[in-house]
Amino acid sequence: MMSSSFGTLFRITTFGESHGPGIGGVIDGCPPGISLEETDIQPQLDRRRPGQSTLTTSRNEPDRVRILSGVEDGKTLGTPLTLYMDNKDVRPADYREFSRVPRPSHADFTYRLKYGVQSKSGGGRAGARETAVRVAAGAVAEKILFSFFGTQIVAWVSAVGTVSWGTAEPERVTRAQVDRHPVRCPDGVWAGKMVRAIQKARDKGDSLGGVITCVCRNVPGGLGEPVFDKMEARLAQAMLSVPACKGFEIGSGFAGTRMFGSKHNDAFIRRDGRLKTKTNFSGGVQGGITNGEPVYFRTAFKPTATIAIPQETVDVDGSPVTLKGAGRHDPCVVPRAVPIVESMAALVILDMAMMQRARGRG
Amino acid sequence: MMSSSFGTLFRITTFGESHGPGIGGVIDGCPPGISLEETDIQPQLDRRRPGQSTLTTSRNEPDRVRILSGVEDGKTLGTPLTLYMDNKDVRPADYREFSRVPRPSHADFTYRLKYGVQSKSGGGRAGARETAVRVAAGAVAEKILFSFFGTQIVAWVSAVGTVSWGTAEPERVTRAQVDRHPVRCPDGVWAGKMVRAIQKARDKGDSLGGVITCVCRNVPGGLGEPVFDKMEARLAQAMLSVPACKGFEIGSGFAGTRMFGSKHNDAFIRRDGRLKTKTNFSGGVQGGITNGEPVYFRTAFKPTATIAIPQETVDVDGSPVTLKGAGRHDPCVVPRAVPIVESMAALVILDMAMMQRARGRG
Amino acid sequence: MMSSSFGTLFRITTFGESHGPGIGGVIDGCPPGISLEETDIQPQLDRRRPGQSTLTTSRNEPDRVRILSGVEDGKTLGTPLTLYMDNKDVRPADYREFSRVPRPSHADFTYRLKYGVQSKSGGGRAGARETAVRVAAGAVAEKILFSFFGTQIVAWVSAVGTVSWGTAEPERVTRAQVDRHPVRCPDGVWAGKMVRAIQKARDKGDSLGGVITCVCRNVPGGLGEPVFDKMEARLAQAMLSVPACKGFEIGSGFAGTRMFGSKHNDAFIRRDGRLKTKTNFSGGVQGGITNGEPVYFRTAFKPTATIAIPQETVDVDGSPVTLKGAGRHDPCVVPRAVPIVESMAALVILDMAMMQRARGRG
Amino acid sequence: MMSSSFGTLFRITTFGESHGPGIGGVIDGCPPGISLEETDIQPQLDRRRPGQSTLTTSRNEPDRVRILSGVEDGKTLGTPLTLYMDNKDVRPADYREFSRVPRPSHADFTYRLKYGVQSKSGGGRAGARETAVRVAAGAVAEKILFSFFGTQIVAWVSAVGTVSWGTAEPERVTRAQVDRHPVRCPDGVWAGKMVRAIQKARDKGDSLGGVITCVCRNVPGGLGEPVFDKMEARLAQAMLSVPACKGFEIGSGFAGTRMFGSKHNDAFIRRDGRLKTKTNFSGGVQGGITNGEPVYFRTAFKPTATIAIPQETVDVDGSPVTLKGAGRHDPCVVPRAVPIVESMAALVILDMAMMQRARGRG
Repeated sequence: MMSSSFGTLFRITTFGESHGPGIGGVIDGCPPGISLEETDIQPQLDRRRPGQSTLTTSRNEPDRVRILSGVEDGKTLGTPLTLYMDNKDVRPADYREFSRVPRPSHADFTYRLKYGVQSKSGGGRAGARETAVRVAAGAVAEKILFSFFGTQIVAWVSAVGTVSWGTAEPERVTRAQVDRHPVRCPDGVWAGKMVRAIQKARDKGDSLGGVITCVCRNVPGGLGEPVFDKMEARLAQAMLSVPACKGFEIGSGFAGTRMFGSKHNDAFIRRDGRLKTKTNFSGGVQGGITNGEPVYFRTAFKPTATIAIPQETVDVDGSPVTLKGAGRHDPCVVPRAVPIVESMAALVILDMAMMQRARGRG
Repeated sequence: MMSSSFGTLFRITTFGESHGPGIGGVIDGCPPGISLEETDIQPQLDRRRPGQSTLTTSRNEPDRVRILSGVEDGKTLGTPLTLYMDNKDVRPADYREFSRVPRPSHADFTYRLKYGVQSKSGGGRAGARETAVRVAAGAVAEKILFSFFGTQIVAWVSAVGTVSWGTAEPERVTRAQVDRHPVRCPDGVWAGKMVRAIQKARDKGDSLGGVITCVCRNVPGGLGEPVFDKMEARLAQAMLSVPACKGFEIGSGFAGTRMFGSKHNDAFIRRDGRLKTKTNFSGGVQGGITNGEPVYFRTAFKPTATIAIPQETVDVDGSPVTLKGAGRHDPCVVPRAVPIVESMAALVILDMAMMQRARGRG
Repeated sequence: MMSSSFGTLFRITTFGESHGPGIGGVIDGCPPGISLEETDIQPQLDRRRPGQSTLTTSRNEPDRVRILSGVEDGKTLGTPLTLYMDNKDVRPADYREFSRVPRPSHADFTYRLKYGVQSKSGGGRAGARETAVRVAAGAVAEKILFSFFGTQIVAWVSAVGTVSWGTAEPERVTRAQVDRHPVRCPDGVWAGKMVRAIQKARDKGDSLGGVITCVCRNVPGGLGEPVFDKMEARLAQAMLSVPACKGFEIGSGFAGTRMFGSKHNDAFIRRDGRLKTKTNFSGGVQGGITNGEPVYFRTAFKPTATIAIPQETVDVDGSPVTLKGAGRHDPCVVPRAVPIVESMAALVILDMAMMQRARGRG
Repeated sequence: MMSSSFGTLFRITTFGESHGPGIGGVIDGCPPGISLEETDIQPQLDRRRPGQSTLTTSRNEPDRVRILSGVEDGKTLGTPLTLYMDNKDVRPADYREFSRVPRPSHADFTYRLKYGVQSKSGGGRAGARETAVRVAAGAVAEKILFSFFGTQIVAWVSAVGTVSWGTAEPERVTRAQVDRHPVRCPDGVWAGKMVRAIQKARDKGDSLGGVITCVCRNVPGGLGEPVFDKMEARLAQAMLSVPACKGFEIGSGFAGTRMFGSKHNDAFIRRDGRLKTKTNFSGGVQGGITNGEPVYFRTAFKPTATIAIPQETVDVDGSPVTLKGAGRHDPCVVPRAVPIVESMAALVILDMAMMQRARGRG
C-alpha cells in the first residue's frame, strides 16, 4: 500500500495542500445502494473543524463537504465516492519565514529532505487540515457500519497534559456525553480542569498534549486478518498516521505489562446464549481477531509544536535564530482529534468487515 | 494489503502452522547482487529460538533455515527469496483438549469465529512459532540496510513486570551488551532483578509481561510515506502484528503527552556540517518522515496467556471448566521477542528506503 | 489492486460519473520537482475530446483540466496530484428510457447485475467520458518519461472496419503525421478511405470498429516485473481496461503464431556499442522485460454499441422492444481512442521505471 | 501489486528457479473449510508436465505436489496454503554457454539488464517450469469455483502454426474431448494435422507457435471491477504473464473490429426466466463485468525460442557466434499450455468472485 491511500476493500485516497484551493478524498469500494447525503457527513466535520471554542485555532474553515461522484438520488452507486471541501481561510504568507527556518518538531525539515521541495505553508500535507478528509470518509464508514452491525464508535479526551480522567465503565460513554463540554471529556468536573490547564498553557504561549480513549461497541467477532493485518495492527497504523499521534495501546496496553498472567487472562463465561469474557483486558481482540467484546484503545498526542514562546534554533544554513510562533494552531489538539480517532477506527473496522465477507463469512 | 504479506517493495509473505510440517516465507522484491547465505540469517534465528535458557519454553526447535530460491552462488538473483524451516518438536496432542475449551486470552476462540475451523494446535498461526520467519526475513533486511546505509538496529528488554530499567543514552546500547544476559537487559544489575521476577512467576505457575525498547541508528533522513504510511504508522502496524504486543510508542510517546510544547520541541542545531536536533523527543521522525536522528520506540507485551495455575472458564457449550495449563510456553516472552522487534523494524525501514529510491531520491 | 486505481508507484485513481458534476483523478506517487502546468496536459485532452470533427459525437465538452493539488509555483510537490474537469454538456434525460431497456452490448445490464443500482446515464463509469482522466494523467506520465529517458509514445489508427493500413517502419511514425488527418491514420490515402468508411456507416445509422497500433521509443531496457507484472501483461491489462477494447497483441502477436521459430527469433547484433536485435518480432520485450528496442503493440476496438438502426431486444421484464439509438456517440471510436492508448502506455511504463529504480537499478 | 504475486483476495505468490532445489507457491486468502488434498491438484499438474508424449521436452519432472501448510485433516484452514514441488531433473550445465551468448528471443539478455545477475539456467524464472505452480494454484481455484458456482473452464488448442481449427459451438467442448489427443485439439482430424505439423518442425530442428481458445461456463454475472480491473483486463494480464504468450482477445476480438455495430451487438432475449443474449460477440463481458453468458477468449503463443537450427547472433561483447540449440524444450508449447491458460482464468475469476462477495453481493 502506498502513502495517500488507506484500506484494501473500502479504500480512501486523500489529496490537497493545507493552503491550496481545497482538499478531498476518493473512496473506492463503497458498497452500492446505501442512502447517503452531505448531511450524513457534515456533523462529524463540524465536530472537527476549528473555531468551535476559544480552545482552538482561529483559522476559520466552514468545511462544507460536497459529494462530487458516486451518489445519485441519495444512494451510493458502488462507484468511487468523492468528497471535496474548499479551503477558504488560506494565508500562506504566514508561513513565508519558515522556508528558511525549519520549525522545531514540525515537518518543514523532513518534507524538504524527502521531496527536495516544500509547499509554501511548510508541511502542506503534514498539518491538521488533511484530517478533515479522513473525518468525512469516516462518517461514511460509520454510517455503513451502524446500518450493517449497529456498530457505535465513541472517543473522548481522557487526559490533557497531567490532568487525567479514567472511568470504570468506558463501554457506557456516549457521544452526547462527550460533546457536553468543548474539551470533549465526558466528566464535567474533569473537563473543567482540562479546560483550565489548556487556558493556562495558551496564556503563557505554550501548548499541551493529551490522550484520547476510544471504544467501539457492536463490532462483530471474527474481524482482523492475521498475521500482519491483525485488527490491532491496522488500528495502530491508522492512529499513528494521524498528525501528532505518538502512541497507541489496545486493552490493557502498557499497564498490562505490569500484571500477572493469572490476573490478565480474560476467562470465558456464558451470557445471553453465547460465550463472552468476564474481563476485557484484551480490548476485544485476541490473536488479531475481534471476539465480539468492545474494542477499546488509547492514543497519545504530543503537545502542539507551534507555540508563541520564542525558541532558540538555527536556520537552514545553521545560523542561530530566535523563532517566534506563527501560523494559527490549537494550544492542545486533543479535543478536535476526537472525531479523527473515531473516523480512522471506522475506516479500519469496515475494511476488515468487508474482508471477512469476501471470505464467505460475516 | 492482506493478511500474510507485509511490505510493498520488499515484501515478505509467511506461511506455516505451528504444528504442521514446517514454516517459511517468501521475500519478493529483494534487490539483486547481494551476498547472502544461510549463515547470515542463522544468528538472529538462534537468538529467537526456544531452549536458550531456563527462562524459555522447553519446545526444542533447531530452526535451521534453508534458502529454497532466489540465491545462486551466494548472491541474490532479484527473484523471490524463499526461507524454510522444518518443524521438529511437534506435539499437537498437547492441544487436543482445547478443541472444546477455548483457552482464555488465546486465539482459539477467535480463529474459530473467523474461519469456522481451527488448526489442531489451537491458533496454528497465532502462536510464537510464526515469528521465526519474520526473524529470518528481518535478518536479510538488516544485512541489506547495513550495507546500504550502515543502519544498526538494537532492541532490549527495558521492563519485566514491574521491574523497569531506563537509560539516558539509549543510542549507545549495543547488541553485544544486550546479549550478555539471557533476559536481554543490557544492565547487569537490572537483568538480575528481571530474571528473579520471571523465576518467581514461573515457580508459581504464573507469567509476566514486559517492555522492549528499540533504537535504529543511521537511518537515512527522508524515509516514510505520508499520509498513511508514515514511518511511525508502519512501525506501529509492524509491532502490533507481533503476537502478545499490546502497545507502541515512538519518541516521548505517552510520557510526552504530559510535557509542555516549549520543552518537548526538538530545536535544531548545526553539527558536523548538517542540521541535527538538540533533543530527540520526536524519536527520529517528524511528520511521518525520518529526520536522520536515531529512530526509537517502545513496545508493550502482555503476560503470557498460557499459565500452569488452574483457571475457571467455560467450554464451547458454556459449561464451567477448570482449565490447567498445557502446551509449552515461556513464562515471559520479552527476552525472545527482542530479535522479532528488531526484525520487524528492519522490514519497515528497508521497504521505506526502497520507496524513497523509487522516487529518484535517496 | 482494485477497481478505480491503476499502478503501484505512480498510481492514478479516477472518479466521476459521465453525467454527474465532473470527473477527475488523483495521482499518488508523482515524483517531486517536476515542472507542470495545466498547459502540459491540455493538448492531449484536446486530442481526445469530442467535437473535433464530423466523425465524432456531438457532445460538447471543453475538458478544461484544473490541477487541484500537488503543484505549487509550477512544480510538483511529491504529494497527490489532483486533476479535475467539470462536466458541461450533461443530458441524463437522454438515457431515461434505458432504465427499463438495457442497451445491447452496453454496460446497463451488467452494472445493474453488479451493483443493484444504476446511474441515470446507464453505465455511468462505463462510457468514454471516464477516459478523459486517463488521458490527463497519461500526459503527466508522458512528460516525466520524456524528461527522464526521452521516451516518445506514438499511436495511430491502423484499421477502421475492413480498411487496414500497415507500415514497414512503425518506429518512424510521428505524432505530427498522425494528427494531419482527423481519422489519425498517418497515411493520407488510407486516412481518406477510413473517413469514407466511417461516413458511410454513420449515414446508415451504423457503426464501425478498428485497430490502433502504438510504438514506444526510447524505453529503457530492464523494465517489467516478472512473473505476473511483465511489461506485456501490464500493457494488456491497461489496454483491455479501455472501454470497447477487445484485444491486445505485442510484437508479432497473433500473426507470429503462424511463423517458424527460426524466422521469429530476434538475433542479436552489435550497433553503436551495444547489443541490439536485428528484427523486433518480440515487440521490445523478452521474458516480460524491455530490451531497449521499441515497444510496439496493437489493440482491437469493437464497433460502437450505440447505433441509430432500430434493434430488436427485450426490456427488463423480457417483453420485446424495438430500441432506437439515443445518447450521443461516435460512429467509430478509434480516432479519439488514440491518445487514450498512448496515455495508458505511459502510465504503465512510468510505473515500471519507478519500480526498477526502487531496486537500485535504472 | 508486484511481480511474483497475483490476485487481491485469492492471491498466489510463486517462487523457485528452474534449476534450483524446487518451486512452489503460497496462496493467501483461500476460503476456510474447503476439502482439499494433493489428489485434487495432481491431475492438472500431470496435464502440464513434460514427457507426456513425443511432442514435448525430454526433461522429466514428476511434479509431485506437496501441501506444506494451510490444510489439516483434509480441510483448508483459511491460513496460507503452500504448494511445493521438488526439481528433480536439473541440468544447469546445459546452460553454461548462455552466460556469454544471450539466446535470441529468450530472457537471458533482459534478466541481465534488469537484475545485473543471472541464474545459471538463463532466465531462471522466465522458463516454463515456473508455470507448474500456477497450475497447482489454479487447480485449487477451479475446485472452489466449481463448488461455489458450478463453474467449468475448458481450454484447447485451436491453432498450431498455420493449422487452425474453429468450432461453431465452443461452449460445448469438454475437457475429456480435449484430452483425447496429446495435441489437445478436440477434433480428431485437425488434431492429426497439428501433430504432423509439429513433428515436421521438430524434425527440421525448428519450432511452431499456436493459439489456445478458452471457454468458462457458469461464471456468475456481476464479476469484474471497473474501471481498471475489468474482467477482460485481468484476464489479459493473466494470459500475457504466461511465458511465450503474445496476444489476447475476448469475444469477437480482432475479427470483431471488421464487423458493423448492427451485427456485433448482442441483443437480449428472455430464456429460462432470465435475460440472456442472442449472440455472444462480447465474450460474456460487457463494460468489464460478466453478464452470465460463457466467457470466452483466445491467446496467442509464439514459436518456441529454443531451436536446434544454428542461429547467427553475437555474444555479450558483440562478437559473431553461431549458436546451436541447447536446453530441453518443446517444439511447440501450446499443448502443455492448455492447463496453464485454464489455471490463470480460474485464478482471475475466483478473485473477482470474492471481490464481489466483499461488496455484499454475489
